[in-house]
Amino acid sequence: MKPYVLGIDIGGTNTVFGLVDARGKVIASSSIKTQKHAKFEDYLDELYTEATRLIEANDATDKVHGIGVGAPNANYYTGMIDDGVNLPWPTPIPLAQMFTEKFGIPTAVTNDANAAALGEMTYGAARGLKDFIMITLGTGVGSGIVINGQIVYGHDGFAGELGHMIVKRNNGRLCGCGRTGCLETYCSATGVARTAREFLEARNEPSLLRNLDIETITSKDVYDAAISGDKLANDVFTFTGTILGQALADMTVFSSPEAFIIFGGLAKSGDLLMRPLREAMDKNMLSIFKGKPKVLLSELKEADAAVLGASALGWEAK
Amino acid sequence: MKPYVLGIDIGGTNTVFGLVDARGKVIASSSIKTQKHAKFEDYLDELYTEATRLIEANDATDKVHGIGVGAPNANYYTGMIDDGVNLPWPTPIPLAQMFTEKFGIPTAVTNDANAAALGEMTYGAARGLKDFIMITLGTGVGSGIVINGQIVYGHDGFAGELGHMIVKRNNGRLCGCGRTGCLETYCSATGVARTAREFLEARNEPSLLRNLDIETITSKDVYDAAISGDKLANDVFTFTGTILGQALADMTVFSSPEAFIIFGGLAKSGDLLMRPLREAMDKNMLSIFKGKPKVLLSELKEADAAVLGASALGWEAK
Repeated sequence: MKPYVLGIDIGGTNTVFGLVDARGKVIASSSIKTQKHAKFEDYLDELYTEATRLIEANDATDKVHGIGVGAPNANYYTGMIDDGVNLPWPTPIPLAQMFTEKFGIPTAVTNDANAAALGEMTYGAARGLKDFIMITLGTGVGSGIVINGQIVYGHDGFAGELGHMIVKRNNGRLCGCGRTGCLETYCSATGVARTAREFLEARNEPSLLRNLDIETITSKDVYDAAISGDKLANDVFTFTGTILGQALADMTVFSSPEAFIIFGGLAKSGDLLMRPLREAMDKNMLSIFKGKPKVLLSELKEADAAVLGASALGWEAK
Repeated sequence: MKPYVLGIDIGGTNTVFGLVDARGKVIASSSIKTQKHAKFEDYLDELYTEATRLIEANDATDKVHGIGVGAPNANYYTGMIDDGVNLPWPTPIPLAQMFTEKFGIPTAVTNDANAAALGEMTYGAARGLKDFIMITLGTGVGSGIVINGQIVYGHDGFAGELGHMIVKRNNGRLCGCGRTGCLETYCSATGVARTAREFLEARNEPSLLRNLDIETITSKDVYDAAISGDKLANDVFTFTGTILGQALADMTVFSSPEAFIIFGGLAKSGDLLMRPLREAMDKNMLSIFKGKPKVLLSELKEADAAVLGASALGWEAK
C-alpha cells in the first residue's frame, strides 16, 4: 500500500489539507481560502495546484494511497454535496468524482463530524473502540456514530445528526434547522452564549459578563468569567453540561456505546462542563447502562484534527 | 446446512416453541407454562422433553441447524440472562450454554424485541431492508435496531432500549425502570390505558369509557370506544400517536432508517394510531430526512411472530 493519504477539510472559511502517514503523523499541511472562487472548478484548480506543490515538496508523488475529504453535508454513499450550507458554490457538487478525476487518486468524502470520528478511531482517543459516539461542540453540535467499528451512515448517508435531537419539546429555542428545541441550540458554543444572554436578562445578580456588550458575548467570554469565579457564568456551564449529560444518557439507550468522545472548543472547558455533564448523565442513565459509557475528551490536536479525520477516510478510498 | 431451526420464545406466562424451515414456515409448534418450575433445570427438562417430541413427530431428528431463543433481557454476546424481569428463576442464567448442552444443538439468544426484528428481516416486512428499526408496542415498548443488515447490540449487548428514551423531561410519568418520562409510559398498551384514565379524570365530557371501572380500563377498551366514535377515546389515540411520531422523528436523526416496523397489539389500531403518528413524525422530522423513513406494520402473524423471530437467530447459532 502506498504510504500516504491526503486529508482535506473544507470549512466555511478555510480549506485545510495535509499529507498524513499511516501512523497519523501530519507530514506537512497548508490551506487556501474556501470563499475565494465563485466557481467550484476554479477552487478545485487552486486546491489541486497547492496540494500538488505540497506532495512534490515532500517527495510523495505517486505515494498517495487515497484522498479523504470532510465537508459540510457531504454524503459518503453518493460522494456528493447536495446542499452546501456555508459553502459558496451552487449544489449539487459531485465532490468525490471531481477530486478523483482531478488528482487521479481515489477520493472518499463524508461530513466533518464523521471524519472527526474516523480520525479519533484511527489515531486518537477511540483507538481500539468498536462502539462509540463522537460529539463535536462547535458553532453547532455534530456527531459521528460508530457501531461495530463502522461509521453509521444510515439508509441515505445522512445518519448521525444528534445535534438535532429534540431536548426541549415545548418552548424550545429556535434552531437553524427551522425546528425548536434541538440539542445544538443549547450545547454548542453559540448555545452557551445564548444561555448567558438569557441568564443576564432574566436575573438581576451582578456578573463580570455585565461589563460586556450582551449581544456579542461569546462562549470564551463565559468561560473566562466562570474560571474567575463568576456565579452566573458558572451556572451557564452547569445548565449546558446538564442538558448534554441528559442527552448522552438518552443516546445510550440507542446504541449502548463504550464511550462518548467530546471534541471542539467547549471540550476545553474542563470540569466546568464535564462535572455537571457526568452528574446529569449518571442521574438520567437507565440502570442497565449505569456507569458503563465513558466520557473521553478528544486526543487529537485541534489544529490537526480536521485534516487527520479526513485523511483517515483516504485509507478506505478506492 | 440442516433444513430446520427451533425457535423458542420465553415469555412471562408461556414458553412457545416451533420448528421452522428456511422459508419461515412454522412446521409445528407447541408451548409450556413458563412459571411451572421454580428451578430453571426442571423447566429446561420439560422444555427439552416437549421440544424433542415435536422434533421427532416431524421427522426432524438431526435436522435442526440451530436453536434461537428470545427472552427478556437475554444478552446475545454472553448468552446469559443477568436479570430476568418477569421470570421465576434466580439469575444469572447461562441460557445459551445450558440449551446447547441439553439439546446438543448450537443455541443463540437475544431479547424479544431483537428477535422480532430478526424475524421481520428474515421473513416479514423488513425483507431486503438493511437499515430499519423495529418498535414493539406491548405491555412495554421494545425495540430492535438494524444497521447495515445487523442487529445493534452495542458495547455490552443491551443496545436498543428505545422504550426508555425520555420523551417528557419534566413531570413525566413514572416508569417501571425507576425514572420518569420514558416513551413506554405513554405509547405501550398500558400507557394508552393510563392516558385514558388521566383524560377521564381531567375532563368532564361524556365518554363510553365512563361506563367501565376506571381502574381496569385496557387499551382494547379504549380502541373499542374509539371505533364507536367516542371523542375522548379518539383523543387518547391522537395523544399516543403524536408522542410516538415525535419519538420516531428523533430516532431518525440517529440512524436514518429506511423504515420503522411497528409490531404488537396497538399496531392493530390502524389509522386511529397511525394517522396522528405519521402527522407528528412528518411535522417533527429534520428537513434532510423529511418523507424518507417509511412506517410499516409487521407482516408476521402475531401467533407465529415470537417463534419466527427467535428461530431466525437459530440460523446464526454456532
